[in-house]
Amino acid sequence: MAGIVLRLGSEGYAIHVGRGLYETVLAQTLVGMDPARIVLASHPDILELHGSRLEDALRGMTAGDTSMMHFTFPPGEENKSLLTLERGYVALLEAGVTREDVVLAFGGGVVGDLAGFLAASYMRGVRYLQVPTTLMAMVDSSIGGKVGIDLPGAKNAVGCFHQPVAVVSDIGVLKTLPQREVNSGLAEVAKYGFLYDVELLSMLRIWESERSFEGTAIEKIIARCAGHKAEVVRQDERDVIGIRALLNYGHTFGHALESACGYQALRHGEAVALGMMMAARAAEMDGMAAGGLLELHRDVLMPLIAQVEAPEGLEVEVVLRRMLADKKRGRRQRFVLLEAPGEPRIVDSLDEDIVRRAVEEILRETWGMER
Amino acid sequence: MAGIVLRLGSEGYAIHVGRGLYETVLAQTLVGMDPARIVLASHPDILELHGSRLEDALRGMTAGDTSMMHFTFPPGEENKSLLTLERGYVALLEAGVTREDVVLAFGGGVVGDLAGFLAASYMRGVRYLQVPTTLMAMVDSSIGGKVGIDLPGAKNAVGCFHQPVAVVSDIGVLKTLPQREVNSGLAEVAKYGFLYDVELLSMLRIWESERSFEGTAIEKIIARCAGHKAEVVRQDERDVIGIRALLNYGHTFGHALESACGYQALRHGEAVALGMMMAARAAEMDGMAAGGLLELHRDVLMPLIAQVEAPEGLEVEVVLRRMLADKKRGRRQRFVLLEAPGEPRIVDSLDEDIVRRAVEEILRETWGMER
Repeated sequence: MAGIVLRLGSEGYAIHVGRGLYETVLAQTLVGMDPARIVLASHPDILELHGSRLEDALRGMTAGDTSMMHFTFPPGEENKSLLTLERGYVALLEAGVTREDVVLAFGGGVVGDLAGFLAASYMRGVRYLQVPTTLMAMVDSSIGGKVGIDLPGAKNAVGCFHQPVAVVSDIGVLKTLPQREVNSGLAEVAKYGFLYDVELLSMLRIWESERSFEGTAIEKIIARCAGHKAEVVRQDERDVIGIRALLNYGHTFGHALESACGYQALRHGEAVALGMMMAARAAEMDGMAAGGLLELHRDVLMPLIAQVEAPEGLEVEVVLRRMLADKKRGRRQRFVLLEAPGEPRIVDSLDEDIVRRAVEEILRETWGMER
Repeated sequence: MAGIVLRLGSEGYAIHVGRGLYETVLAQTLVGMDPARIVLASHPDILELHGSRLEDALRGMTAGDTSMMHFTFPPGEENKSLLTLERGYVALLEAGVTREDVVLAFGGGVVGDLAGFLAASYMRGVRYLQVPTTLMAMVDSSIGGKVGIDLPGAKNAVGCFHQPVAVVSDIGVLKTLPQREVNSGLAEVAKYGFLYDVELLSMLRIWESERSFEGTAIEKIIARCAGHKAEVVRQDERDVIGIRALLNYGHTFGHALESACGYQALRHGEAVALGMMMAARAAEMDGMAAGGLLELHRDVLMPLIAQVEAPEGLEVEVVLRRMLADKKRGRRQRFVLLEAPGEPRIVDSLDEDIVRRAVEEILRETWGMER
């Protein structure tokens, strides 16, 4: 088991990565928090797969003093909505949840973001725990306190910063994760590799040859990513000095792709994988990066999206229009580009023609799409 | 003009009380913040009365570089809702408001709470200014960063802490405030008097004999209250160590009254005035306070609610049921009671019969209501 301590101001919190953690550190953490009630926020599929193990572990710990309630909602980005949030507020209010209670976010990124914002805003904030069940959430979204919901057409448009009391990533749940979700998480792993840690790319490639959730390799990969994330958040919790913003590598392109498919056909990590390839191509065209950068990206990322079919109805023009629409609305369109692996830089403007060609080329290479 | 500096951690902010402040400190503060856009959040009545003065002042300052947009919603507690909040999110999103822009909350408590929460949660937080236009908001709700909305039947059930960049209370706007609103604000002034500052009660009584918004008396009263509020928030920003909780004096009873009338028939300050008299009666019955406490409360508060008619349909039983309903839901029902003026204490439980008799007696004395 790996324990990473994220220090923030005088407080901070622990990020635990390992096996059998629900029965040990999670239960112990909850004992220390002493809530009257635990609000288990999750979705039905996760509860069916792993809920009874989690609840058994918590019941063993609380000896019947702590009651438990469920707040569940269907999986999928489209449910990270104001409507689901309202349902959550009403459920907590009707159950009489108070600021002394605890929300436990048990799921992937959507569950963590929504349940975290519910916890941040119900009664001006209740304590919560992140218990991620996807690779993507373990390496990225569960750490750092960014919580929130989407508005129609605007991902993460509403939210705040609300740090969890702890993050408990139990690797035991990953073996039920569908391969597409695993690959989507690996794209985020690769992001840390490109940004900070070339050795992580080798670890990723070695792991991919076996794809085993037994053994220590996957634990080491997740802990290494969590360590990078924790260090970034420690330096720039509120995302204001350009350090945390680097984690948006691949995201300017990626968000336009997700938005163009209505957030359904592509997993977040898949969109980011494509986005990082576009960013690498753009950095080469701009002359900022030497040749070979895109090649490295292709080697690492193409296997992760090889099984993904072109989203029906996705058009190059629509992707480009989404990117330009953002720009027209007066938003600064920032790109994270690499001069080389491990050397990221924020670029406030990028030639429109380079953007266009990067999008076109990667979509053509990946799916044979033409304008 | 009085300037109070609220220190919080390493930052804090200034609270300005005086005249002609839109043209001076407000304009200067905005110049310093350098937003591309100002979102003027308000309601139509306030804008009609004082909007052109405010906008002229801001236009004079920005020399045309800063654009201004309005987000308005009708006055009244019933509009401090998730629905209004959603309208706000969509309006800001459609206008392309970014985290570099500024929200200016221009109105009373409802505007400040809702616009503050909009600012706190849109794009994970944009900067905002509190520019209160009611006495109640100037002395209390605009200071301290508690922002949020109501859920049906549950006031302030959703929200967070988001401190403004500054609070600018221009007394010039108070002369258009309806007398009921003035009296409602004076009840909050009296609250600070009972809790911390007996001299303030004398200042209040002297001011009431003339009720003039010219001269320095009202400015001194507001600044004195703002100073008390700032000190309380400095000591207990997040309302966790029992210091800020004292500001709920009269509120446990008051909320039940507001809730029993559906938040329409009674102003917040009126409900708090009645609630403080109930609390004083309860403290006497409990033996915690010597006799004379209720008498002092009656002297100060009765004139403030003398013109208020009994809300149609208000029943003693309903008020009591609201209080018991809260208790049954597992919420700790805390009361702030006074041992004497200036000596408040938090009481975690109060004999149910005392609660009942305090509610009954004050409603009978005030409005001749019988069970």
